[in-house]
Amino acid sequence: MAISLAHFGVDSHFVTRLPPNPVGDAALRVLRAEGVGIDAVQRGGERMGIYFVEAGASQRPWSIAYDRAHSAISELDPSSLDWPKLLRDVAWFHTSGITPALGPGPAESTRRAVQAARELGVTVSLDFNYRRMLWSASSAKEVLPSLVRYVDVLFAGEDDLRTFLGIPIPHGALDPASLDLRACETAAARVVSEYGVRQLAITLRENLSASHNGWSALLYDGPSKTLHRGPRHVVHLVDRIGAGDSFVAGLVFAQLDGKPLDQALRFAVAASALKQTIPGDFNRVSVAEVERLGDAEDGGRVRR
Amino acid sequence: MAISLAHFGVDSHFVTRLPPNPVGDAALRVLRAEGVGIDAVQRGGERMGIYFVEAGASQRPWSIAYDRAHSAISELDPSSLDWPKLLRDVAWFHTSGITPALGPGPAESTRRAVQAARELGVTVSLDFNYRRMLWSASSAKEVLPSLVRYVDVLFAGEDDLRTFLGIPIPHGALDPASLDLRACETAAARVVSEYGVRQLAITLRENLSASHNGWSALLYDGPSKTLHRGPRHVVHLVDRIGAGDSFVAGLVFAQLDGKPLDQALRFAVAASALKQTIPGDFNRVSVAEVERLGDAEDGGRVRR
Amino acid sequence: MAISLAHFGVDSHFVTRLPPNPVGDAALRVLRAEGVGIDAVQRGGERMGIYFVEAGASQRPWSIAYDRAHSAISELDPSSLDWPKLLRDVAWFHTSGITPALGPGPAESTRRAVQAARELGVTVSLDFNYRRMLWSASSAKEVLPSLVRYVDVLFAGEDDLRTFLGIPIPHGALDPASLDLRACETAAARVVSEYGVRQLAITLRENLSASHNGWSALLYDGPSKTLHRGPRHVVHLVDRIGAGDSFVAGLVFAQLDGKPLDQALRFAVAASALKQTIPGDFNRVSVAEVERLGDAEDGGRVRR
Amino acid sequence: MAISLAHFGVDSHFVTRLPPNPVGDAALRVLRAEGVGIDAVQRGGERMGIYFVEAGASQRPWSIAYDRAHSAISELDPSSLDWPKLLRDVAWFHTSGITPALGPGPAESTRRAVQAARELGVTVSLDFNYRRMLWSASSAKEVLPSLVRYVDVLFAGEDDLRTFLGIPIPHGALDPASLDLRACETAAARVVSEYGVRQLAITLRENLSASHNGWSALLYDGPSKTLHRGPRHVVHLVDRIGAGDSFVAGLVFAQLDGKPLDQALRFAVAASALKQTIPGDFNRVSVAEVERLGDAEDGGRVRR
Amino acid sequence: MAISLAHFGVDSHFVTRLPPNPVGDAALRVLRAEGVGIDAVQRGGERMGIYFVEAGASQRPWSIAYDRAHSAISELDPSSLDWPKLLRDVAWFHTSGITPALGPGPAESTRRAVQAARELGVTVSLDFNYRRMLWSASSAKEVLPSLVRYVDVLFAGEDDLRTFLGIPIPHGALDPASLDLRACETAAARVVSEYGVRQLAITLRENLSASHNGWSALLYDGPSKTLHRGPRHVVHLVDRIGAGDSFVAGLVFAQLDGKPLDQALRFAVAASALKQTIPGDFNRVSVAEVERLGDAEDGGRVRR
Amino acid sequence: MAISLAHFGVDSHFVTRLPPNPVGDAALRVLRAEGVGIDAVQRGGERMGIYFVEAGASQRPWSIAYDRAHSAISELDPSSLDWPKLLRDVAWFHTSGITPALGPGPAESTRRAVQAARELGVTVSLDFNYRRMLWSASSAKEVLPSLVRYVDVLFAGEDDLRTFLGIPIPHGALDPASLDLRACETAAARVVSEYGVRQLAITLRENLSASHNGWSALLYDGPSKTLHRGPRHVVHLVDRIGAGDSFVAGLVFAQLDGKPLDQALRFAVAASALKQTIPGDFNRVSVAEVERLGDAEDGGRVRR
Ligand SMILES: [Ca+2]
Ligand SMILES: [Ca+2]
Ligand SMILES: [Ca+2]
Ligand SMILES: [Ca+2]
Ligand SMILES: [Ca+2]
Ligand SMILES: [Ca+2]
Ligand SMILES: [Ca+2]
Ligand SMILES: [Ca+2]
Ligand SMILES: [Ca+2]
Ligand SMILES: [Ca+2]
Ligand SMILES: [Ca+2]
Ligand SMILES: [Ca+2]
Ligand code: NI
Ligand code: NI
Ligand code: NI
Ligand code: NI
Ligand code: NI
Ligand code: NI
Ligand code: NI
Ligand code: NI
Ligand code: NI
Ligand code: NI
Ligand code: NI
Ligand code: NI
Ligand code: NI
Ligand code: NI
Ligand code: NI
Ligand code: NI
Ligand code: NI
Ligand code: NI
Repeated sequence: MAISLAHFGVDSHFVTRLPPNPVGDAALRVLRAEGVGIDAVQRGGERMGIYFVEAGASQRPWSIAYDRAHSAISELDPSSLDWPKLLRDVAWFHTSGITPALGPGPAESTRRAVQAARELGVTVSLDFNYRRMLWSASSAKEVLPSLVRYVDVLFAGEDDLRTFLGIPIPHGALDPASLDLRACETAAARVVSEYGVRQLAITLRENLSASHNGWSALLYDGPSKTLHRGPRHVVHLVDRIGAGDSFVAGLVFAQLDGKPLDQALRFAVAASALKQTIPGDFNRVSVAEVERLGDAEDGGRVRR
Repeated sequence: MAISLAHFGVDSHFVTRLPPNPVGDAALRVLRAEGVGIDAVQRGGERMGIYFVEAGASQRPWSIAYDRAHSAISELDPSSLDWPKLLRDVAWFHTSGITPALGPGPAESTRRAVQAARELGVTVSLDFNYRRMLWSASSAKEVLPSLVRYVDVLFAGEDDLRTFLGIPIPHGALDPASLDLRACETAAARVVSEYGVRQLAITLRENLSASHNGWSALLYDGPSKTLHRGPRHVVHLVDRIGAGDSFVAGLVFAQLDGKPLDQALRFAVAASALKQTIPGDFNRVSVAEVERLGDAEDGGRVRR
Repeated sequence: MAISLAHFGVDSHFVTRLPPNPVGDAALRVLRAEGVGIDAVQRGGERMGIYFVEAGASQRPWSIAYDRAHSAISELDPSSLDWPKLLRDVAWFHTSGITPALGPGPAESTRRAVQAARELGVTVSLDFNYRRMLWSASSAKEVLPSLVRYVDVLFAGEDDLRTFLGIPIPHGALDPASLDLRACETAAARVVSEYGVRQLAITLRENLSASHNGWSALLYDGPSKTLHRGPRHVVHLVDRIGAGDSFVAGLVFAQLDGKPLDQALRFAVAASALKQTIPGDFNRVSVAEVERLGDAEDGGRVRR
Repeated sequence: MAISLAHFGVDSHFVTRLPPNPVGDAALRVLRAEGVGIDAVQRGGERMGIYFVEAGASQRPWSIAYDRAHSAISELDPSSLDWPKLLRDVAWFHTSGITPALGPGPAESTRRAVQAARELGVTVSLDFNYRRMLWSASSAKEVLPSLVRYVDVLFAGEDDLRTFLGIPIPHGALDPASLDLRACETAAARVVSEYGVRQLAITLRENLSASHNGWSALLYDGPSKTLHRGPRHVVHLVDRIGAGDSFVAGLVFAQLDGKPLDQALRFAVAASALKQTIPGDFNRVSVAEVERLGDAEDGGRVRR
Repeated sequence: MAISLAHFGVDSHFVTRLPPNPVGDAALRVLRAEGVGIDAVQRGGERMGIYFVEAGASQRPWSIAYDRAHSAISELDPSSLDWPKLLRDVAWFHTSGITPALGPGPAESTRRAVQAARELGVTVSLDFNYRRMLWSASSAKEVLPSLVRYVDVLFAGEDDLRTFLGIPIPHGALDPASLDLRACETAAARVVSEYGVRQLAITLRENLSASHNGWSALLYDGPSKTLHRGPRHVVHLVDRIGAGDSFVAGLVFAQLDGKPLDQALRFAVAASALKQTIPGDFNRVSVAEVERLGDAEDGGRVRR
Repeated sequence: MAISLAHFGVDSHFVTRLPPNPVGDAALRVLRAEGVGIDAVQRGGERMGIYFVEAGASQRPWSIAYDRAHSAISELDPSSLDWPKLLRDVAWFHTSGITPALGPGPAESTRRAVQAARELGVTVSLDFNYRRMLWSASSAKEVLPSLVRYVDVLFAGEDDLRTFLGIPIPHGALDPASLDLRACETAAARVVSEYGVRQLAITLRENLSASHNGWSALLYDGPSKTLHRGPRHVVHLVDRIGAGDSFVAGLVFAQLDGKPLDQALRFAVAASALKQTIPGDFNRVSVAEVERLGDAEDGGRVRR
């Protein structure tokens, strides 16, 4: 997310906690290489969370084994972060539902962050990113809805809306194969009116195979009461990890850049489609590279 | 075959002969790593058969250069194997038509093995695997049919049935593009009645391209006189070598596991489809992974 | 081009200039490995031109960063090459529009080469290969048309015909998606009559995606006034660099081999389709491998 | 340790606890590959302890960053292991001081193990392996001496003897550069008489450079009251990790094999010298390979 | 040099010129990763200078093939750099004799830089780094001595002193095998008095073999009129490239850090010895790692 | 051998037999890359001989597992080679004792080759290269001495002289640690007088360790009755395989080049010392690189 924004030329900073050992050093080195500001990275804790990935192919799914118990960030002390100071002169603050899932410290820190951001007039976005291997739905339900009160732009899926926000929505309404645009619109409007968010963004993935996925997204805009539908790209997957984050980064950049909604959504969908053609977690594409893709499935000529 | 069964949790053992040198040691190490029992592996002979693979892509076919002349197994002494002892408490014995093709010793050993297995009530399966670079059709015809007399489950293709077993079957009847189910049924019934096998299994590969193949299979069951057709998977090929062996392993496991015929065939087709998405010769998938694929082309979500 | 011909069994020689340093040595070593004659390779100059490739995938295009300013070949001294001697007993001379783009020395050398070849009755072919990053269209226009006078077989695209040869042709007439065969025929006939070339060859690429391309070609034969259309292959791209050169090599070989036009074109299209399934720049396929592909999309069985 | 014994042909089994995830599966696969019995490996817990190694060279030391907090083994439940059953028919039980350092469960398990072994007449060996990054000296002092009561063969260093066992020994007496054999003998005799161990083994490393180390060892035998000094090898280090474990394995094997003390020590020193010439943690050498080295610095001819 | 300083915790910035292409992007990414400030990096020019290295071993020397003709930096426009602004609040400015060797633009830029630094009271250091493949001794003689007028700390060798500064010094006086400390002192004192530099630093390399080198250095301090001799390290070479730069960085850091002369020299020698044990050009060691080495050849224990 | 000569600029050709499969193709490609003439390479036979190498280090020896039974060359038909034609205009013919060890065909071919060479006045050299894993000493004794009758320059070791040529020589006389130059001279003179060879060359290897070897050689010249001793290099081994062949190549080149005996021997020793610093079997050094090493242990400066 922060890395993708840095590649779009945005002055982006990452607030996290890394252990004071060579593994933490290596993480810092990577952030620095990709151009992310690291002045708000705290050093401390026992270990860095890691994960092991088996790349999927065709019918064989990608498989991730997480090993992030007791990570430095999970033992974050909320009082160690001075959010009003960290957020000074910041235009946008983004956080993910994974952070509060990591423990009471990160959860409290997230709450303080979004509250401070709202008070300072910083735009706040949240990606639900619910992971049932990290916490139960009932634990998440105690935390996530209360964060949404401070959120301007929410990234969520069908189950998230139903389970955490209590929005009634027909099963499969957000499934690309049976997309019910009217039901989406109704549900999105309720999220806006009940939770005070400004926009709701929803990514749409079609699992054509483990190698080929359809990829698109919806964006509901509260003020204009309009539902926008992005273009659909069929991606020959290289690495699907990081698709969600790169979509967020695309939408954040495009709105900061003042693009109109349709164009912003198009940019975010194209950016995250490109991410899935890049090995590794990072979306290293530039604004020009995203815009060159445009809407069309124009494939990739050699540029020379 | 043995490796795939070991990954399904079956206590599987491999009877072979490896040279007493570091290359044989390395082979043994791999078998052990994958969980295959090696107590029946004989050490001796001059060299280990090897092969060189050029991975194909799109219109460029996979290419294999065999270098197995004078391999340790080809110079196997039939009297060195005490089959009644090796087969004690064994539920299933599988062999391939490649073994008798390697020379008179392996051929005689195979004959003794299937005969001993039949006498001990061990289920016997045989995959014809006819390779014209190893022996002529006329040589094979002198050996293979006589083995079939002892076989319970036979794996064969259209040409095998016609050439080695003398079963009349219209040209192309087993070609997926022009599959003639009624002719298959008639031919399979004759194999059962004439040769006394219990089941005949046939894999169906469609060469959509060197990158994408359709993959399915048929199973004719003698006792119930029924022909079963497995689901069809379109596989984006990663490594097609080992597809046949992994199909055998799937069908053996599923029947040992007591699955009904349709479900067993479905399992075997799914297992061998997954194999073709894995680099290397081994099908390292677990039962749970095969069952998760099921019949549907549901592609591969990230599991996390 | 020379490498592909060598793999077809043609005695092919490469005339170029390499710096007298280990980088030039390495280039020479590769030419020798692939079977290309190197007796006409000149050593001299400051450096070897290189390029950096980022392999594309799906929507992300292949990207090439050239670094060939001041390469040894760009500072070639025309008087250092004795073309009549170099072309003695040669059947075919091929050159590309990239060479004259590199500087006045290479341009003058190219002019002398085609002139000498014509005088000696050596068949001459030229691939326009116009690269706007190397020279402006107006500079190219001063050089390329004058070379065409000496050319027997010309390889060009729609824009080349219009811009450099002044042939009127409707926009998109050579676009595979809107191919206008009659317009192609008219345009090709004018190239033949106005410039005196014997044949005009045109490759047709459809950018289905950065991973899958349609690939075919047209060949107009002056003497017989016939337009031939090659088969269409859908290639799952492994490395698209070198497609044009391998098409040229295929057509040159097939004509030297005396194949009739349709068969020659089929051979060239198949050869260059196969190239795009091979990593790296070289088309290492043999004549037998090309002929085995034939016209049909028969995919790639395992050969064993 | 277990792996080295397996390569010596000993039927060796590893008692440990691995998480029920793909990382634990991979560890199990490696143990199996190297020939170690895995029937006593427990599956459970959150994660597998890992470490990151930076290979040293010349003046730059090897550097290890441990990440084993909360590993599966550290949360071992002592009641889950039935030691009398695990130790049935076992000849030798070895454990390391790292295990009790990992937490109260492993500490209690170790205590129960050595107690059960002693009762069953199984030879017990313990390598102190004190790591100050795992526990304080005072914590270790509460645990290690009480274990020594059950130990037959103890592996320890100068600081261990002084700090944990309270044996007075002059500073530097066990430093290879100033080795005081008489003081060693006196100290070793006290360990034997005060703690009831049968043998005390001490490795001697000279840090000539990070690339070259002198390597030897001492063995004090209680019953015969003799101090034995092993040969000295100057090792050009490839990977020094695992030297201690391979020395233990060498001494255990040699004694199980009935070698006299001098020969046993020579074997153990040679085995562990060879380990340090092998990349990775495992000592994959056979008995024949160790014996071929012998005492002499005879270097390594090509064997062919 | 800048990278090593960044690893010592110094806020270090690199003034250079990189081409506006992906190769320049990659260079920038590396600088950022290693923590070097890049705000003064200019983008422009045709290409980036590169070099090809063949790693030496034993009697086979390291071999470098430079390819830096027409690099972006060689075509630097002196008027594009506002040195007074670039040097504001800077404590130390270092440059190398390679820069003026690249062309008139870089030479003039270097002259302006050292002049501006002197005027602003910034400490200036210069490493002669004379490369005869870049310019002739006579060309260098026109440029280098005039730069020395502005230099505080000079890094040079015996030939440099004699050839460029006209200092009479016996042949071999600075050869480690025949070091003549008195002659060094006399020569150094003349450099100080005649050219107004404050310190003269000289590295001493003994080519024991291509694998093992002795490494040390001398430092003459003008104000105190003292000659200091650093410790000698015998390095088992991993990568000797960058030894000189890392010595400069060590001496700059140690003096900025206020270390006394002997300690500063010791630090610089140790830092550059460690560099030669690290693959690649960068000295990634921290201050603590350098200080841990100290003077002694204490080799490298495992740190854990 | 042939490859090393090609790198010295000698027009060298390799007579061998390679199987007509992709493995043989790959071998041919490598020969061509290194500049060896391949017009006398026969295609035929079943397989290519291969070997597996485990690189040694320090006390751990290099280990080779040969797999060359039934190689194409071992089944060579002597009548298939027209030696008088192959040797036309050839200056030197070299062969190794490994060839006749491979079977009756290669043995007879070798006999015919040396006989033809002698008749045509081609200088003949033979390296005994006795491998006891290929044939027994008694078999070798039937073949090798009869070949020596046609040999001009013989490469042999102490055991070879004693066992195959029946020359009495004290044990250890050719061991570098106890070199008895007078006994060498006497033995060499007898080889010359009894077998009619012109020169006898003997390499001297000291196994200081598996990482460091002393390396030198002796050359006895029959006509001048002089024994020459080459310089001694201590090599930090990178890959010792190919040392003997590169020594032969060095001596052949130096004599063809007209160097006096001492210089020729120095060249051959230096060339083969350098070989052992290069990974892989090939000695890719040029004449200039060998001469730059000279006699002195001057290590390897960076050349730039
Ligand atoms: Ca994500
Ligand atoms: Ca990019
Ligand atoms: Ca098969
Ligand atoms: Ca798995
Ligand atoms: Ca091209
Ligand atoms: Ca091929
Ligand atoms: Ca240890
Ligand atoms: Ca071994
Ligand atoms: Ca330097
Ligand atoms: Ca470090
Ligand atoms: Ca040899
Ligand atoms: Ca070279
Ligand atoms: Ni970037
Ligand atoms: Ni695709
Ligand atoms: Ni694909
Ligand atoms: Ni497994
Ligand atoms: Ni696909
Ligand atoms: Ni298989
Ligand atoms: Ni080839
Ligand atoms: Ni495809
Ligand atoms: Ni083993
Ligand atoms: Ni060494
Ligand atoms: Ni260990
Ligand atoms: Ni750093
Ligand atoms: Ni060393
Ligand atoms: Ni440097
Ligand atoms: Ni070469
Ligand atoms: Ni050649
Ligand atoms: Ni060394
Ligand atoms: Ni050799």
